Amino acid sequence: MYELGVVNTTIQRPDPEDVAALSDYGTATVHEAMGRIGLMRPYMRPVYDGAKLCGPAVTVLLQPGDNWMLHVAAEQIQDGDVVVAGCAAPSHAGFFGDLLATSFRARGSVGLVIDGGVRDIADLEAMDFPVFAAAIHARGTVKATLGSVNIPVTVANAHVNPGDVVVGDADGVVVVPADRVAEVVAASRAREAKEATVRARLAAGELGLDVYNMREKLEAAGLHYND
Amino acid sequence: MYELGVVNTTIQRPDPEDVAALSDYGTATVHEAMGRIGLMRPYMRPVYDGAKLCGPAVTVLLQPGDNWMLHVAAEQIQDGDVVVAGCAAPSHAGFFGDLLATSFRARGSVGLVIDGGVRDIADLEAMDFPVFAAAIHARGTVKATLGSVNIPVTVANAHVNPGDVVVGDADGVVVVPADRVAEVVAASRAREAKEATVRARLAAGELGLDVYNMREKLEAAGLHYND
Amino acid sequence: MYELGVVNTTIQRPDPEDVAALSDYGTATVHEAMGRIGLMRPYMRPVYDGAKLCGPAVTVLLQPGDNWMLHVAAEQIQDGDVVVAGCAAPSHAGFFGDLLATSFRARGSVGLVIDGGVRDIADLEAMDFPVFAAAIHARGTVKATLGSVNIPVTVANAHVNPGDVVVGDADGVVVVPADRVAEVVAASRAREAKEATVRARLAAGELGLDVYNMREKLEAAGLHYND
Amino acid sequence: MYELGVVNTTIQRPDPEDVAALSDYGTATVHEAMGRIGLMRPYMRPVYDGAKLCGPAVTVLLQPGDNWMLHVAAEQIQDGDVVVAGCAAPSHAGFFGDLLATSFRARGSVGLVIDGGVRDIADLEAMDFPVFAAAIHARGTVKATLGSVNIPVTVANAHVNPGDVVVGDADGVVVVPADRVAEVVAASRAREAKEATVRARLAAGELGLDVYNMREKLEAAGLHYND
Amino acid sequence: MYELGVVNTTIQRPDPEDVAALSDYGTATVHEAMGRIGLMRPYMRPVYDGAKLCGPAVTVLLQPGDNWMLHVAAEQIQDGDVVVAGCAAPSHAGFFGDLLATSFRARGSVGLVIDGGVRDIADLEAMDFPVFAAAIHARGTVKATLGSVNIPVTVANAHVNPGDVVVGDADGVVVVPADRVAEVVAASRAREAKEATVRARLAAGELGLDVYNMREKLEAAGLHYND
Amino acid sequence: MYELGVVNTTIQRPDPEDVAALSDYGTATVHEAMGRIGLMRPYMRPVYDGAKLCGPAVTVLLQPGDNWMLHVAAEQIQDGDVVVAGCAAPSHAGFFGDLLATSFRARGSVGLVIDGGVRDIADLEAMDFPVFAAAIHARGTVKATLGSVNIPVTVANAHVNPGDVVVGDADGVVVVPADRVAEVVAASRAREAKEATVRARLAAGELGLDVYNMREKLEAAGLHYND
Repeated sequence: MYELGVVNTTIQRPDPEDVAALSDYGTATVHEAMGRIGLMRPYMRPVYDGAKLCGPAVTVLLQPGDNWMLHVAAEQIQDGDVVVAGCAAPSHAGFFGDLLATSFRARGSVGLVIDGGVRDIADLEAMDFPVFAAAIHARGTVKATLGSVNIPVTVANAHVNPGDVVVGDADGVVVVPADRVAEVVAASRAREAKEATVRARLAAGELGLDVYNMREKLEAAGLHYND
Repeated sequence: MYELGVVNTTIQRPDPEDVAALSDYGTATVHEAMGRIGLMRPYMRPVYDGAKLCGPAVTVLLQPGDNWMLHVAAEQIQDGDVVVAGCAAPSHAGFFGDLLATSFRARGSVGLVIDGGVRDIADLEAMDFPVFAAAIHARGTVKATLGSVNIPVTVANAHVNPGDVVVGDADGVVVVPADRVAEVVAASRAREAKEATVRARLAAGELGLDVYNMREKLEAAGLHYND
Repeated sequence: MYELGVVNTTIQRPDPEDVAALSDYGTATVHEAMGRIGLMRPYMRPVYDGAKLCGPAVTVLLQPGDNWMLHVAAEQIQDGDVVVAGCAAPSHAGFFGDLLATSFRARGSVGLVIDGGVRDIADLEAMDFPVFAAAIHARGTVKATLGSVNIPVTVANAHVNPGDVVVGDADGVVVVPADRVAEVVAASRAREAKEATVRARLAAGELGLDVYNMREKLEAAGLHYND
Repeated sequence: MYELGVVNTTIQRPDPEDVAALSDYGTATVHEAMGRIGLMRPYMRPVYDGAKLCGPAVTVLLQPGDNWMLHVAAEQIQDGDVVVAGCAAPSHAGFFGDLLATSFRARGSVGLVIDGGVRDIADLEAMDFPVFAAAIHARGTVKATLGSVNIPVTVANAHVNPGDVVVGDADGVVVVPADRVAEVVAASRAREAKEATVRARLAAGELGLDVYNMREKLEAAGLHYND
Repeated sequence: MYELGVVNTTIQRPDPEDVAALSDYGTATVHEAMGRIGLMRPYMRPVYDGAKLCGPAVTVLLQPGDNWMLHVAAEQIQDGDVVVAGCAAPSHAGFFGDLLATSFRARGSVGLVIDGGVRDIADLEAMDFPVFAAAIHARGTVKATLGSVNIPVTVANAHVNPGDVVVGDADGVVVVPADRVAEVVAASRAREAKEATVRARLAAGELGLDVYNMREKLEAAGLHYND
Repeated sequence: MYELGVVNTTIQRPDPEDVAALSDYGTATVHEAMGRIGLMRPYMRPVYDGAKLCGPAVTVLLQPGDNWMLHVAAEQIQDGDVVVAGCAAPSHAGFFGDLLATSFRARGSVGLVIDGGVRDIADLEAMDFPVFAAAIHARGTVKATLGSVNIPVTVANAHVNPGDVVVGDADGVVVVPADRVAEVVAASRAREAKEATVRARLAAGELGLDVYNMREKLEAAGLHYND
């Protein structure tokens, strides 16, 4: 359960080399490699084409229509971090724009994931500061009510602990627990290796029916072919 | 982060007297009493008019379109429990109907909260078995992939631990951590007592402007009156 | 264009007898009688079955997630008024509940129309205080930023001037300009009289094809019948 | 593919006794009995609580915002028919209200299923004329462009031939091909008989885990229990 | 009505020259040329900018969250085909990604239209394999329940027979019955020729009011001009 | 309230130099400079990447599914105008395509804002004729019912008078009253100047906490830091 008005200044981030290794893989691969858990709801979309990110989470709990805690979070950013913000109620206000992007980048952040709205989209694209958000909305927010920074939060229905790694690309955003990053890198690598073999066979015209040995099971299930 | 394929058979439920006391209060009151946290997303609605519930959570992690784990959960129900089910991906399939309602009730359950679809609505209403759901859908599910029972889950963006108490009524669903129930009862009682006084004054024609001493602050903010 | 921070204390309400006469007609009839203008977007729904209202508007411009101006509006209510609130940005927060309903009723209000969320639905139904809203949400609001009262507002895409009459029922909400109420009453009466004749003929088994003389026009448009 | 401007006056309806027998079963049962096909999209909802219907379809292809063809369809209604209307493009206009309901009933119709909007909801409820619709909208339509009557149509993504039987209740709407009605009655009866037995066992406290023999399969899938 | 568990291996495709000719025209033109029928619901969108396709349909009926039948469909693809998949219930799971795209392309397919979700968007764009889908979702599917291949299906509310030609571009997706392709090519050509003339006149500054002779009709309808 | 069947041929446009000056600023800046009013609902989106516009409004009230008034509006366009169209009921039909774009451009228009659907998206992008719309839909409209031109309209919940200036970019669309354009230019300029200073400080690594002097207020609100 959330605690309000708290900033935890010390968080455990995973080994940067593991994070770097993980950044070679996309959301869909990582999600499969984890056993199909940790995916945010699919309304989380990149705000410009080609946005992608990977890094440990500085987590934020926002109040609806209030971006005060994003400023508090900026101070907690370390090189390579992604700010990952949930909101205590659905809110599509424009919590974040080019000024905060400038600040986050200056502090070392490599992107933002926010269950809310953002603005200054053209600027974010020009800066190539990747943002995954629930909405685009020009209307800004107020700074009046406390949330928290670096507590566990739920973001687009995914549970995120500070230091967990988030991976985002055109397929959405997935969360990898800090203590599973190395394992997920290995599983992603294995998965992609296996897929490379399959891809080559499929590209050569073989069918998934044969590659995956589906014919017998389909027949057992009762599939019949008519001329 | 979720673990798949696990059933925890021992969970800590709060004192039943505290739960009973909490059941006197509605979702809006409890949510305020907790400091405005723990509310599920507002798409969670009662499936018939007048449905309401309060009880400790037997939690379930479902796979989309698969209700296998609801059967596993049935065995873990104790008197007064609410089954609280999240889903690993958005799914509006009909996970639950009158047969499972019959089973859950026979095992002692007082209701269901599910981030998915349900069916047999007329039967559920006739049984007065309260259900809060994301959708109504006649199409049933399969029983093929493991989820888990009595692990922490996120349900409509709220984090729920087994044994946490969920309160649902026409205003939605809120989650109270097991170890905060007594405190939230006290805060709810205090809030309602205070509201009773305010209500009496408002009913007598006094204005919130005066009851809450807003006039000075409004003037300071620059409000002006034109004849 | 909206002006912020203003309360107009003097507004022109239409003749109460005209308003009373208008209350005999439902939203669909009034909308047709006006020439099919003035209808709010259909996401505006009664929050309980059977809610209906008719009365001159005390208008409110709200800030998202902030219900301060509803308290300011309470003081401007006269007997028979409906509070009609638009919001400067989409916001499904719970702006209104049973305490404000108590206050509004004590001041003479016969209902609320709000392009936002409300809560305490069971209480509102028990009080039979009719509310038409965009959402139901248990989460309350703050009181921090000025809007205005009794200025022209847009509510669910309809333009409303203070004193305009709003009519709401299960079909939605329509706005009648204050200076057109008498005319719209007459047109509604005429429409219903005409419909009564048509209804009797249709109930007797005559077809709309004949009652409305459609056959020739349909044939001209090329409709053909196959046995 | 649709043909425009056509009315087929002769359609094959199933045996009325089969239709009567089918009306004993609800949407969820019928959908399962058919092998999980024929269900309309779940946005099709009864416009008042308790609405339910069962009958052969007089089908209509509507143009968006144009209800001309509903008048043409009225003439084709026979006792016990349900008018089932698809629309060539999404349209939430109010195609249907109490006058057409009066006409349809006078001609023998027992209800309407429409992939569009309707109005006069309070009247429809007072008449107890069941309607399943995509939306409620006070705004009426024009009568300007031809569609067709009694051709195959798609309605909320379900394909409907004239004479097919539609079943609607609180769980949604399902379509039964005219030539399968007797078979589906039998399958529904068998399903309910089987469910009665299961229900009794579940009501007595047996678990679905045992009634459905799930334990072995769950164990094989890897489910493990922790104390 | 759908039959489950069937693959029809022989379908009638239209003349490839007609299909090639049709591919010169976009969705909006073809839809008008057909008399405004056959358009899929507008939630069907290209998953990357610039995606477009035209070809005969290999149809698929999918079960929600289950992509087994896409593998079965792959074997039925001939050069130039588009796979066109409906789903028995709404499902935004990721049914399709780069591996299936590789397979489909190897078999000769020129694109996919699916009333469901897809993933590996960046790969699809890099391959320039055009896909029109209802959603983007990283979460994959299972392979457990039979659907069918090359039966009539409804896809985003459009009825599609195997061999019908689908045309997709930034404006959406339209279906042309196999036996109408030549006719629709001719009508599209005629329409574009006529539009070229109109376009030239409009580009020269003439008004639609004059080009389409609207002034008299507008005046008859009662339009009046104020200085 | 709307009047139907009216075209006002004389409207007051603001000083073209002020409009030109305003075009230097984006939607988010202008909306803030106006005091956070005048923003259209965020479902109004550019139909291609990079679309942006600024100009005085020729306003249109459309009937749902009917684009007749857009042709009437074309005659009222002067150099630099934006056509701004509201609709009397929600309608996602394709009101506008490349022919009207050709006509509008020939008459001097620099773009369209429409609370409805449009089509020929690829052509609009090729022409670089900026359009902000509620939907993309290939299906065209009819020309049968009068609306009005150059009357006050509500568009995506924003009130627009003829001659008001609309500003649209990737962040959405905002409306500036004609008599406030100069003032809003000045306020936008001031805001951007101030932001430039802040941006430089943030880019240098200073924190918003210090730039905006938030620390004391956060402490007063009860924020505490844990190591």
